Parts: sequence; C-alpha cells; structure tokens
Amino acid sequence: VGSQQLPPGAVVTPAVVVDSDVLDANLRAMADSAARRGLLLRPHVKTHKSAEIARRQLALGAVGISVATVGEAEAFAAAGVADIFIAYPVWADRDRAGRLRDLAARIRLSVGVDSVAAVRHLAAELRGGAAAPALVPVHVLVEVDCGLRRSGAAPAEAGTVAAAAAAEGLQVDGVFTFPGHSYTPGGLEAAAADEAAALAAGAASLAGQGLPCMVRSGGSTPSAAWSAGPADGGPVTELRPGVYCFNDAQQLALGSCTADQVALTVLGTVVSVPAPDRFVLDSGAKVIGPERPPWAPGHGLLPAFRGATVTGLWEHHAVVRTSGDGALPEVGDEVTVIPNHVCTVVNLVDYLNVARDGKLVDRWPVDARGRNT
Amino acid sequence: VGSQQLPPGAVVTPAVVVDSDVLDANLRAMADSAARRGLLLRPHVKTHKSAEIARRQLALGAVGISVATVGEAEAFAAAGVADIFIAYPVWADRDRAGRLRDLAARIRLSVGVDSVAAVRHLAAELRGGAAAPALVPVHVLVEVDCGLRRSGAAPAEAGTVAAAAAAEGLQVDGVFTFPGHSYTPGGLEAAAADEAAALAAGAASLAGQGLPCMVRSGGSTPSAAWSAGPADGGPVTELRPGVYCFNDAQQLALGSCTADQVALTVLGTVVSVPAPDRFVLDSGAKVIGPERPPWAPGHGLLPAFRGATVTGLWEHHAVVRTSGDGALPEVGDEVTVIPNHVCTVVNLVDYLNVARDGKLVDRWPVDARGRNT
Repeated sequence: VGSQQLPPGAVVTPAVVVDSDVLDANLRAMADSAARRGLLLRPHVKTHKSAEIARRQLALGAVGISVATVGEAEAFAAAGVADIFIAYPVWADRDRAGRLRDLAARIRLSVGVDSVAAVRHLAAELRGGAAAPALVPVHVLVEVDCGLRRSGAAPAEAGTVAAAAAAEGLQVDGVFTFPGHSYTPGGLEAAAADEAAALAAGAASLAGQGLPCMVRSGGSTPSAAWSAGPADGGPVTELRPGVYCFNDAQQLALGSCTADQVALTVLGTVVSVPAPDRFVLDSGAKVIGPERPPWAPGHGLLPAFRGATVTGLWEHHAVVRTSGDGALPEVGDEVTVIPNHVCTVVNLVDYLNVARDGKLVDRWPVDARGRNT
Repeated sequence: VGSQQLPPGAVVTPAVVVDSDVLDANLRAMADSAARRGLLLRPHVKTHKSAEIARRQLALGAVGISVATVGEAEAFAAAGVADIFIAYPVWADRDRAGRLRDLAARIRLSVGVDSVAAVRHLAAELRGGAAAPALVPVHVLVEVDCGLRRSGAAPAEAGTVAAAAAAEGLQVDGVFTFPGHSYTPGGLEAAAADEAAALAAGAASLAGQGLPCMVRSGGSTPSAAWSAGPADGGPVTELRPGVYCFNDAQQLALGSCTADQVALTVLGTVVSVPAPDRFVLDSGAKVIGPERPPWAPGHGLLPAFRGATVTGLWEHHAVVRTSGDGALPEVGDEVTVIPNHVCTVVNLVDYLNVARDGKLVDRWPVDARGRNT
C-alpha cells in the first residue's frame, strides 16, 4: 500500500494517492493472465477515468477500452483511444445520437443494446430521421443477462435483438454480459460459469438467426480469473475488468487481490481525537465514497491499525473506533484508508496524486470525472 | 416535485433538476422559522455548493454561511460572501494556514476547533512560525459533542480549549455542535434537547474561564424546528441547517419535509425493461449517490410510481423492481428519482438544471464541487 510511504505533508489531505509501481504490476498481471488464456482484454475505464492509465493498458496489449457513457467515450477519444465499446444499453436520444455519429466518424465505436426498441431507435437517430441505412459504421453488441438481473436480454432472445440490428444496417459484433453477481464472497467461480453459459447461449441465439458472433465479452475483476476462453475450451473471447488496476477493500474481502496489490488509497489527516476509543479523519464520504456492501466490515480499512475500519462516515468525517487499549494517533497525523469501492472514489476527485518509491512524482487528471451523460 | 414537469428531452439524462419555486419557498420557510424564534441563520452550503443559492439565503437574512472545508470557504469568498464559518475541527497545516490567512484578510472568517493541540497549531501556523500574536483576526468556535460521538470536545472541556485559544490571541466567539443523531426517525426532538444542553454546558464552561460565549450554534435540518432559542428561553443563538434548501428522501422519511417541499430531483431515462417486474434507469450511483441509511426503503423514491423505490443500484444503472401487476414505463421514458441524500448528489455534478413553471430556465454551476481540502 504505497501511499503510506509518502513523507508527511507531501500532499494536502484528503488526497487520493496511486502507487504507480503497484498499478503497473496490476496492469501487467491482468494482461498476462488474459493473454495466457487466449482472451482479449478490453479494460473498463470507468474505474480510473484517466487517459494516462488507459494508455498504459493499451501499451500492454489491450485491444481497446470499455466505457459506460457517451461522455466517457468522448473523453477517451479526445485522448487518442481509437477503439471504444460503450458497454451499456445506450438510449440514443437526439443529443446522444449526434455525439455517437461524431464519435463513429473518428474511432471504431461499439455500443451495447438489449432490446429491439433500443436498436430501432438507435438506427433511426443515427440516420438523423432519414429513411436510409445508417451512414456511420456503428458496431453493436447485444447485452445478455447471466444472472445479475440488472439490464440485458435473456440469452435466448439475443438473436432477435441482433437480427433487428442487422436489418437496420448496424454491424453486429456479438454479445456481452456482466457477471456482477460475482460480487459476493464465494460467488466468483459460479458467476464465471453463468457468464460462460449465457455467452454461449447468446451466441447460439445469434446463430439461429444466421448471424456470426465474433465477440463474446464478459469478465469482472473478481470473476476474471475463472472466465473460460479459447485456451480452456470456453466461449469467452474478451474480458472487461475495471477495478483490477487499483483494487480496493471490496476486492480484498472477495479474495481477488492481496493488500500489496492495492494501488490506490486515500490519505487523511487526524483532525480530532475526542475520546480514548475514537479518532476522526478528514477523509470523509466526499472522498472515500459512501458505499458499504452489507458484508464489508466498515467504510474502509486502515492498514496501519491492525483490524481497524472506518466505523462512522459523514461527508467530511471518517470516525474510527478502536478497542481503547491500542495506540491512538495524534491530531495532525496522516492515516491511510483503503476505500471500499475505488470507482466511486476516483469520480469524486479531479486528479490522482502519483507516488513512486516514497515520493510524489506526478498528478494525473481524472479526465472523465462526472461524465455521466 | 418540480422536475416531473419538464417536457421530455429538455435535458440530457441523467440530470439533476432544481425547481426554483420550491427552493425559494424552502429558503423562505427556514428564514421565517428562525426569525420568529429570534435565531440567527447561518446555512450550511455544503448541500448546494452554489453561489447563486448562497446569495438567495443571504438576501433572506442569513448572517453568513457555514462550510466544511477551507476550499469551500475560498469558493464562496470568491463569490462575494463576506462572513464564513468553517464548521469543522480545522487542522491548519502549512498549505491551509496560508490559505486561512489569505481568507481572514478579506472576509470575516471563523473556524472550528475541538482540542488545545489544534488551537496551538492553528495559532502557530497563522503566525507563520514567528513567536508573535496572530496578525489576522481569525475567530474560533469550540466544537462540543452533544451525543453524535463524532468530533467535538465534551461540553465541560470547552472552556479549556477556549482559554487556550484566547491565550494564543485568537478571537473566541463561542461554541457549536451538530445534533446529527437527529438523523433517525423519532429522534428529532430528543436530539434538539441534547443540543441545547451541550451548548448551555459549553457556554458555562467558557464562563468558568472568564470568557463570554456570544455564539451558541446548532441546528441540523431535521432538528431545526425543535432548536430552542431566545424566544423560547433556550440557549441556542444560531442555526446551521443545510439540506432544507432541497430536501431529499431521507428528510421525507424523517418527517422533516413533505413531498411538495422536495426541490431537487434526478431525472433519468429508462434504458432497459428486461422483465415484466423490472426496469432500469440511467440515473445510477454516480448521479443519485450510493448512500442508503439502514431505515431507507431503497436507493431513492419514484414519485410517479406509487411506493416504488430504486431496489438495485450500480454506477450507471438504477434498477426498479415492481410488483409486476402495475404499468411499466417504456424504454426511452424519463423518470424522476428523489435521491436519499442530496448533499452527495450535488457534489457529483458540475451544474444544476433549474426548472420553473415546467420550463428549463437556467443552469447554476456547483461552484464548490469537490473542494475537499
């Protein structure tokens, strides 16, 4: 956990700190793991929202990136990324349709769809209302639900959606799914099996409509190690993990990383020690994020205080209750917190402080912060 | 709930919409309520972070504003606010000390303290290391804990902290507390009583040191109606509520507002209707915020669907499960969500869409978004 190495006063707290050596090791490990299994890697950049990190992922062999919104796609296209998949059931209203057309004219653009209605709307809006084939080559992938019960068509319905897209002149690349029900301890392998089954069934449904299914895209950070690709005789062709670049307390609890693979932490200052069993950090919810999965021990972990967690969280106060018999920090001390969900943290700040070998070496802008539309 | 009145397509979703008539009514109601009771109003602007709304609060008689960070103080001072209280136990490190000095030279600046150590550090840093009295007139208020068990000295210790501040040449104005344990249903009146007791005890502790206590500041949105000030023979002189300008699902659950007093909502688009008992909005956690108090029915309320809540929330997906026997929206429909905690929502976006009489009339920047340091 690299930011613990920064000398006091190196950054103004609360501050988000990335250890670039740990980051690079994480990026390389996932790239190697995917390559070993014959899987393409298309990292989800909603986690880091940073052009600098996307460039590192591409330099390590990623075929492109995944984003969640048109606005994120615009930010990364502006940074030079040439192959972007909006892994989301995009509703192409007039504003977004024009922006999608502009993007597709400049980069290889793919978008997610999960209904015939969305496909027809997308095609009509891309044509700008004219009854002619879409002029810009927008690729589509049909989202299938593998058990999360969020968005996504039933796998057996994927062919119907894909056939509608093909009839509208859109280029159908394949199917994708998000095995997000892997986000429970012990659920990783089962979710990966669900992912494989849904992608295979989706591909079969496309075949039933006479359509090829070149891309079968899955993979979340916790389940990625179990995704079955070409080398394992499985149906998955591509992985879209996001969190693996930084990791967080949630991944630690899931067992999908170790403490020395946590690349991003939040540095806070002790602003109050009001009682022998309690201290207060300035790294509140507006920087460490308010998310707390039901099975998380607290609002974030404190590696310097064995077993300690953030037990109370307000916008600018992180309260740590201790057993009362250990050493308390003093007012003014700096304390590192491993946040529960790193994607939320990054979206709260304008830049990441970059540490290496115990020194503050750079600041990377969060280029796509707040790009929700 | 005003944003339901906007015609479809008026804003690109997900979008934060403020009904300016409801906002103005909320601002006036709190101003009137405080004035009736002889209480000064110093609204906490961490909720809206917007110069435009602070100006409206001041025009309605607020004596100044409360903020949580030095960065927020800087943003509002730049917008012309002349009296700012940083209602937080400020740790004045070198960066912040210089910024506090700059602020105090331009506006009437007060800061919170809750320990002798923080007072001595503040004074030393304000002097810039020189062994001379602080040159800039920084006012301090001692934070006392009235039961939340967050930061704040025990009320009986307030005098010790205040005496240290006076000895350092800081101007001691009084004491403040945050009755945040009012944030449970049924706890409002009891928390206000705790607030009164702690402020009175804090004032007595200052008197024991021969110090006056002109300001006894309390008040959260849910407890404000019970705060006992001059007209009621109570010790409170000033209120610092924040959320009341907008209200949210949490305030509805606490009973501190009604549905027609909700001034801020999040407009989303239905991007997927994957099953007869479920639909998905694009207003995910990165705009409606991930906070969910244990007693909240879900991640946000849907006024157009009686009794419906956001039952599943991801960064860009808000999933609404329905009973399966009611009308479902169609893909592309716009749906309004009342978020659980509005302070978190505002901090996620760069501007507020302003609606009035069913029309989009303005955009207000969130001037202090992300000002955590």
